[in-house]
Amino acid sequence: MNSFDWDHSFTVDFDLQNGFSRSAETTKRYLSNMKDMYYDQNAAKDILKKDDPLIYEFYELGCPEREGDLAFGTTILYPGVIGSEYYMTKGHFHTKLATSEMYYTLSGEGFMVMENPEGDTETRPLVKGEVLYVPRRYAHRTVNTGKTPLVVFFTFQADAGHDYGTIETKGYRKMLIEKNGKPELTDNPRWS
Amino acid sequence: MNSFDWDHSFTVDFDLQNGFSRSAETTKRYLSNMKDMYYDQNAAKDILKKDDPLIYEFYELGCPEREGDLAFGTTILYPGVIGSEYYMTKGHFHTKLATSEMYYTLSGEGFMVMENPEGDTETRPLVKGEVLYVPRRYAHRTVNTGKTPLVVFFTFQADAGHDYGTIETKGYRKMLIEKNGKPELTDNPRWS
Repeated sequence: MNSFDWDHSFTVDFDLQNGFSRSAETTKRYLSNMKDMYYDQNAAKDILKKDDPLIYEFYELGCPEREGDLAFGTTILYPGVIGSEYYMTKGHFHTKLATSEMYYTLSGEGFMVMENPEGDTETRPLVKGEVLYVPRRYAHRTVNTGKTPLVVFFTFQADAGHDYGTIETKGYRKMLIEKNGKPELTDNPRWS
Repeated sequence: MNSFDWDHSFTVDFDLQNGFSRSAETTKRYLSNMKDMYYDQNAAKDILKKDDPLIYEFYELGCPEREGDLAFGTTILYPGVIGSEYYMTKGHFHTKLATSEMYYTLSGEGFMVMENPEGDTETRPLVKGEVLYVPRRYAHRTVNTGKTPLVVFFTFQADAGHDYGTIETKGYRKMLIEKNGKPELTDNPRWS
């Protein structure tokens, strides 16, 4: 467990290219941790018979979930597909719905897919050297559509809270699949 | 004036090396904007007779100061001294005192000098590829002790508010001066 004293200043290294830190441990999400989220369930099962690929890893530095504080870290999302659907993060709403999040892309390429409870979807490219602003009230999921790891540095309000359950239960309305070698946004047939 | 729609997602480029954005304008702080903050008032006056050097510039993207939102941008702090005191930012408390701030150093080298209302001072190096966490309740000032621009990417809670007045009136308890070619933290004789 990463341990820092959030009542005092401290520094943490995050490599500006690959996103890794020498002073903290990542949390890892394997396919088995999110197998129900991919629309091609047969493809997911076939892969899991032989292997359990690491989809992404990220840093949780243990920021107390208290007012006025900021949590931050990097996410490293690997390239690949499950069936035709690109590797992606679980995606989540914030429990305090009206809180935003900031993503600075350090390397790789992909998309952020966002949707609010009313069903509005926004999709924006993640490009090295660009900050993506996720507005308040939008669930957000990172998708790697490139051939290399997609590395982002993120910050959010520490007491925002993470609601993964809504996405786990209902899924996302939209999904990004590879079609003729290019990403295409389509309706998710498994959304309920 | 930079104008973005903070109820929707958007992207802004910030060069990962020099910090500049092609899609926004910086706010600029010249020596004349902060001449009373340097301890060597004669040195400041002498420089201003001939010149008004740009000390730093930063991006204000116009984030509404509302709950749940995040302001972000970069600061480019130039190298130099006024007398023996390094170029620095004005420094400020947050109006909502118990709010933190995050600084990711993209290039250059320097220090963050922090102090709380009780008079505790913390000083931490700013190193490329490291995040500096400024805890809640601490005023923070960036100081460039290197030979190249010091470039940091920052994020703070949008409704934190900026209290520059306390530092402008009382000054900082500590200051960083160049002594035998090296930075040294000393008491600020002008602190009141």
